[in-house]
Amino acid sequence: MDIEQFRKAGYQAIDRICDYYYNLQSKPVVSSVEPGYLRECLPAEPPQKGENFDDIADDYQKLIIPGLTHWQHPSFFAYFPTACTFEGMIADLYASSTANPGFNVSGNFMIEDAVFNPSLQWSASPACTELEAVMMDWAAQLLGLSPEFYNTSGMGGGAIQVRGYLASDVESNQTHQPQSTASDSALIAVVAARSLYQRKHPEAELQELVIYTTSQTHSLGLKAGMVLGLSVRVIDVTWNDHFSLRGDTLRSALEEDKVNGKKPFILLATVGTTSSGAIDNLPEIGAIAKEHPDLWVHIDSAWAGVALSCPEYREALHLEAINDYAHSFCTNFHKWGLTNFDASTLWVRDRKYLTEALDVTPPFLRTAHGDAGTVIDYRNWHLGLGRRFRALKLWFVLRSFGVQGFQDYIRRTIKLNALFASLVKSSDQLAIVTPPSLSLTVFHLNPKSVATHTESAARDSLNSLNKIFYGRISARNDILLTSTVLNGIFCIRFAVGSARTEESHIHAAYDLLCKEGQAAVDLWEQTTGEQAVQRL
Amino acid sequence: MDIEQFRKAGYQAIDRICDYYYNLQSKPVVSSVEPGYLRECLPAEPPQKGENFDDIADDYQKLIIPGLTHWQHPSFFAYFPTACTFEGMIADLYASSTANPGFNVSGNFMIEDAVFNPSLQWSASPACTELEAVMMDWAAQLLGLSPEFYNTSGMGGGAIQVRGYLASDVESNQTHQPQSTASDSALIAVVAARSLYQRKHPEAELQELVIYTTSQTHSLGLKAGMVLGLSVRVIDVTWNDHFSLRGDTLRSALEEDKVNGKKPFILLATVGTTSSGAIDNLPEIGAIAKEHPDLWVHIDSAWAGVALSCPEYREALHLEAINDYAHSFCTNFHKWGLTNFDASTLWVRDRKYLTEALDVTPPFLRTAHGDAGTVIDYRNWHLGLGRRFRALKLWFVLRSFGVQGFQDYIRRTIKLNALFASLVKSSDQLAIVTPPSLSLTVFHLNPKSVATHTESAARDSLNSLNKIFYGRISARNDILLTSTVLNGIFCIRFAVGSARTEESHIHAAYDLLCKEGQAAVDLWEQTTGEQAVQRL
Repeated sequence: MDIEQFRKAGYQAIDRICDYYYNLQSKPVVSSVEPGYLRECLPAEPPQKGENFDDIADDYQKLIIPGLTHWQHPSFFAYFPTACTFEGMIADLYASSTANPGFNVSGNFMIEDAVFNPSLQWSASPACTELEAVMMDWAAQLLGLSPEFYNTSGMGGGAIQVRGYLASDVESNQTHQPQSTASDSALIAVVAARSLYQRKHPEAELQELVIYTTSQTHSLGLKAGMVLGLSVRVIDVTWNDHFSLRGDTLRSALEEDKVNGKKPFILLATVGTTSSGAIDNLPEIGAIAKEHPDLWVHIDSAWAGVALSCPEYREALHLEAINDYAHSFCTNFHKWGLTNFDASTLWVRDRKYLTEALDVTPPFLRTAHGDAGTVIDYRNWHLGLGRRFRALKLWFVLRSFGVQGFQDYIRRTIKLNALFASLVKSSDQLAIVTPPSLSLTVFHLNPKSVATHTESAARDSLNSLNKIFYGRISARNDILLTSTVLNGIFCIRFAVGSARTEESHIHAAYDLLCKEGQAAVDLWEQTTGEQAVQRL
Repeated sequence: MDIEQFRKAGYQAIDRICDYYYNLQSKPVVSSVEPGYLRECLPAEPPQKGENFDDIADDYQKLIIPGLTHWQHPSFFAYFPTACTFEGMIADLYASSTANPGFNVSGNFMIEDAVFNPSLQWSASPACTELEAVMMDWAAQLLGLSPEFYNTSGMGGGAIQVRGYLASDVESNQTHQPQSTASDSALIAVVAARSLYQRKHPEAELQELVIYTTSQTHSLGLKAGMVLGLSVRVIDVTWNDHFSLRGDTLRSALEEDKVNGKKPFILLATVGTTSSGAIDNLPEIGAIAKEHPDLWVHIDSAWAGVALSCPEYREALHLEAINDYAHSFCTNFHKWGLTNFDASTLWVRDRKYLTEALDVTPPFLRTAHGDAGTVIDYRNWHLGLGRRFRALKLWFVLRSFGVQGFQDYIRRTIKLNALFASLVKSSDQLAIVTPPSLSLTVFHLNPKSVATHTESAARDSLNSLNKIFYGRISARNDILLTSTVLNGIFCIRFAVGSARTEESHIHAAYDLLCKEGQAAVDLWEQTTGEQAVQRL
């Protein structure tokens, strides 16, 4: 493809993306393709001769688009949102057009070069690294983080990691193992904390070390343990505490482990869990952490963290405690932060804990710029070396929206969720399960005739009813929600966040849920459930 | 930004990218900005009110472009190339426009849902996952990999990892620690191998386990060891073997470690090292590996692997041995494979070694589709959960170029390097250091008057001369090369790979190097070096 063919194909792509967004609302949210559909449509092997690009672009429309679930659809209320703004797309397009891998000093030969030609250390990608350093400071200010976390502090600092967790993982079903994933941010925090602990306590053995998570922590904790071969203690949090980790619970665990010769070295605390948006009690945790200076506290606020941009949520999200004592803090701008996937931001209070754990540069080869903090070499701040130029989209988004536009969007989605929650509260059929958290409501079908869900038998019946209910919702393709299990109660999550969702979509979703709820109750009463419901 | 504003901004971006490529050749390769230049140009905090997008786009041209080193410039011969094709850009633009995180079953709630509604397991991103599975099979065929590595085999398979190493890291200076980075592919291979080893040998303790690399292995091995807290043994490879790991060397290391109670469980072998393009002797290694069935052999061919697309290079790159016994194989299409950063492909001979190490899904919740291999759940094949839709660019590239177009590009760059190597060979001033490897030549300034580089004193003098030489080259902004140290000899690497490089650029580069070489010799002779050179 030559330059003019690219211009033509590029214009076409832009036009087709416009069409996509004009028509998005009329598309089904959920793809109805069957597993294996695509392999049947594609040749088993690559073509020998190059094909016409028009055919390729047409096949994208014909074969791929129908196989997508549309995360930007205004009736997408599943998982958590995934940001996708036009500003982010254009930034990504520019970034993709130069393929500039964002690293600085990048190996022996660069270090070697830099020794006799210091300007070289800067040669691979100056703008990428510099913009990331500035954008992380902008983002820190947007969220109200302490200047100790700014890159300009010379001690703390922030970097965009390859990935945080992508909120699509609920750890609530305590009857079986949590599923899923690690995040770079959490993994890096654990590696840095382990390295720090081992330097302080060289006698500690790996098998004595323990990562702390809670039963509501995203499974990133468990997967970090699996990847690193370290033990994980899952501290149980309770319904009565709204699934928030309390200080006393933490203290008991620490004391018990101390007696048993275990060495807890990091706590992965959460502000805004995936399941229900629960917030660990950071002020209480802070008091305990001060008694246990060896315990690194990492705050995972992958989804909720961007709400810190609005001052009115800072108290509830414990910003003061984060600023007071957190060793590291992570939030994902690619979820609810208007910045296209992926943009997971991680700040640390002391950058040297990262670099001491991840940098294999011997001291005598470290450069003057690097040591002075003039030049941040992000390769020592994360697991990889090459970095896509992610800071560009954060720049485009923060400038195009401004702080106020960013706040407006966050407030609008929270307000839409409040509308949904108020409709549920007013319902005879639906009921809120845990207090709505920001833009997330956890609810279930709980007809007034059902007295309580605290009895085990009643709970089982209600769960069966709700599985029918959720099965009906899931069979539809005009809305998408996901489920969770809290304290043994099968629940449905309603997460607002698509930039295109309006009040009308909330009302339509509520009406649809009421209709399916009634249908589920009818079905239930007509069948085996009839007696069961009466027994409630 | 609304849809029509996006259309305008999108067209503008496409036009400006066209302009960029029309003017690329006349730009300096290397940015001349000073560290800190960007922070001085930007406000210290994000704007309160949103800004006009035209201003933002203009600032990208004004502030960012001048701060980029142009990796696509035809006179960029540094590191290894980073692929950047128009096909890849457009694929990335489409992928970015839907922000569809490529995972399937994604957490308890999805698994839970899938139990009573199996179609749901497919709901998050069917097309993304399916295309990746098919593209990995296309790529496997392109490279001549055994069908055992195809996803259709139901046993082996491939996935696009977040990153392989980005060839920018040379481990050649044996006088100090290697620098830099881990790759997901290598890290995953190490985690899978460790997990397999521990299942086979539950009595083995973590501190007994050893990762094998060579002194020419990319430091991904060392960083994997650091991240995982495991020992790494760096096996020395020699100049006489052209830095290739031989069977006897491996056998000695294994026997020595066995005596000492160490448990080597993985060898990270390399086909095409960063420093000199060295290729480990896989046939010999295979013979030893068969005697040591507990040793996982991972083949890192991040840069060179795509040359397997041309049948005439398969013997030299040991394809038969890879197909015969490698547990895992990695190459990066984003380097020399025409597919925009990032696209690191990893194949394994047995997918269950990955899933058993990385999947926390309990057996009773695994789905029928997943177990049958109909549905690949890539979340269990890598460290993260969310995945960008990378398969799209591989599809666009392989179709637009076709196998023949892909081969033509590889052959053309190898031919350009052969031209460079022949010019160097004909030179009185420059000399080849190690045999040219594919599209990489390692050379240095070695005037005929200097008799030999085997004497230590002569070597030191020659190194000093070459540092002057390389310093002069690096001070220019119309070409970029990187250096390395092999067996104590300071060398310069010449890596061809930009799609825009033509014969004229090779001739121009050679002429420039001759001119700078002469200037370096003149400078050397005029100054303190005069006596030293005569002493040689």
